[in-house]
Amino acid sequence: MAVAWSEKASSMEALSLSPPMSPPVILTQDELKKIAAYKAVEFVESGMVLCLGTGSTAKHAVDRIGELLRQGKLNNIIGIPTSKQTQEHAISLGIPLSDLDSHPTVDLAIDGADEVDPHLNLVKGRGGSLLREKMVEGACKKFVCIVDESKLVKHLGGSGLALPVEVVPFCWKFTADKLQNLFKDWGCIARLRNDGKGEAFVTDNGNYIVELYMEKEIGDLQVASDAVLRIAGVVEHGMFLDMATTVIVAGELGITIKNKH
Amino acid sequence: MAVAWSEKASSMEALSLSPPMSPPVILTQDELKKIAAYKAVEFVESGMVLCLGTGSTAKHAVDRIGELLRQGKLNNIIGIPTSKQTQEHAISLGIPLSDLDSHPTVDLAIDGADEVDPHLNLVKGRGGSLLREKMVEGACKKFVCIVDESKLVKHLGGSGLALPVEVVPFCWKFTADKLQNLFKDWGCIARLRNDGKGEAFVTDNGNYIVELYMEKEIGDLQVASDAVLRIAGVVEHGMFLDMATTVIVAGELGITIKNKH
Repeated sequence: MAVAWSEKASSMEALSLSPPMSPPVILTQDELKKIAAYKAVEFVESGMVLCLGTGSTAKHAVDRIGELLRQGKLNNIIGIPTSKQTQEHAISLGIPLSDLDSHPTVDLAIDGADEVDPHLNLVKGRGGSLLREKMVEGACKKFVCIVDESKLVKHLGGSGLALPVEVVPFCWKFTADKLQNLFKDWGCIARLRNDGKGEAFVTDNGNYIVELYMEKEIGDLQVASDAVLRIAGVVEHGMFLDMATTVIVAGELGITIKNKH
Repeated sequence: MAVAWSEKASSMEALSLSPPMSPPVILTQDELKKIAAYKAVEFVESGMVLCLGTGSTAKHAVDRIGELLRQGKLNNIIGIPTSKQTQEHAISLGIPLSDLDSHPTVDLAIDGADEVDPHLNLVKGRGGSLLREKMVEGACKKFVCIVDESKLVKHLGGSGLALPVEVVPFCWKFTADKLQNLFKDWGCIARLRNDGKGEAFVTDNGNYIVELYMEKEIGDLQVASDAVLRIAGVVEHGMFLDMATTVIVAGELGITIKNKH
């Protein structure tokens, strides 16, 4: 898979959200996310059906789309939210919404990711919405992924953070053991995601999330994906393979846009 | 995969449930199911952890196990039910129950099937419990499948009845369209299972069932299985490939036992 660096904006462009003539500033991670999100919204045209992502980066994009609609710079947009959280947020901004059943073809998705590898494969779902994101983004003609530079990895799992897997609650421990055993040669540890209050985190679909931590690089991702999906009890996993068409990376030195060819 | 016919009982043996010296009778389908179920329970030994199946055939096996426990002919049995329905039935019979989290290794499963092909691949789940059945039966050292002879097919889908696929309710129409499109060269029609009252049938896991009707033979079942599982929105399907170790078939001419080698 060929990956090209099609645009490398100057640091001046990347910093365009800072006030003019301000002294050089160190941008926070959230400011970088906002820069990437605003850049992605430049791909949006009036009349489009849009997939609205979930998470802190995607929220900036949804905010921006709402702002442009209010200003009359965009119109006739239909949004398809990837979570209940995004749905509520978009409604509060007055963005008209629909779903895949009514709009099975989506023009453009804008969403964040937890990891991006050099082939534009992603890990997503640390926000807990991986299944709906994968369904809606898989229906999009174009999927623009927006991240700050901390999300770039040499290989999926390379951040040391979790690969999330959505599982049915029924006998989840058994499924978690099967997942850990599947990747035992990779030093895998499987843990149930909790909600911060000592209970299992529950997804919008009523399922649990098992988080996989790998010591080693996974290898052939498609083989790993199929092996995970074959485990009864697994609903979906957070590897988004061959789905992103563009990745916008905001870093200290500017914006970088990577396109898949 | 080699399949051997290891035992062919006489029609006298098959008819052993009829009163002695009775005139020849035509057995109903339910009587044939009961004969197969009772034969399967002969595999049960005291001290075993058992998977208790779901459906009209499996119910006879659960009834028989309860009877043998009451008579003291079996003891120290632990059952793992594959549905809420079987759980309630087993409790009413006094069968001690557990789950896969506590008993991740199961000695023996006894369950019915909707179709059995010559390689002992099965279609299951027309009763709506395919996910839990696949999880529990996948954990069993031995899986004895019990059917009447009407369930034997030359190839899966050959009965003209549905191949069930469990899907998340979120945008189920979109998922059903993807499934139908995946098998369009096989003349596939996808329909949502209803509950007989005009509403969607809901599984024990809170999901829906999409039923696939194929005009043609599927071909490579493992390839088809992976393709179905790759569709985001699909939780599990009803093809049980390479899982049954023994199939007991009750027919007008007696009981046939097929073992996988």
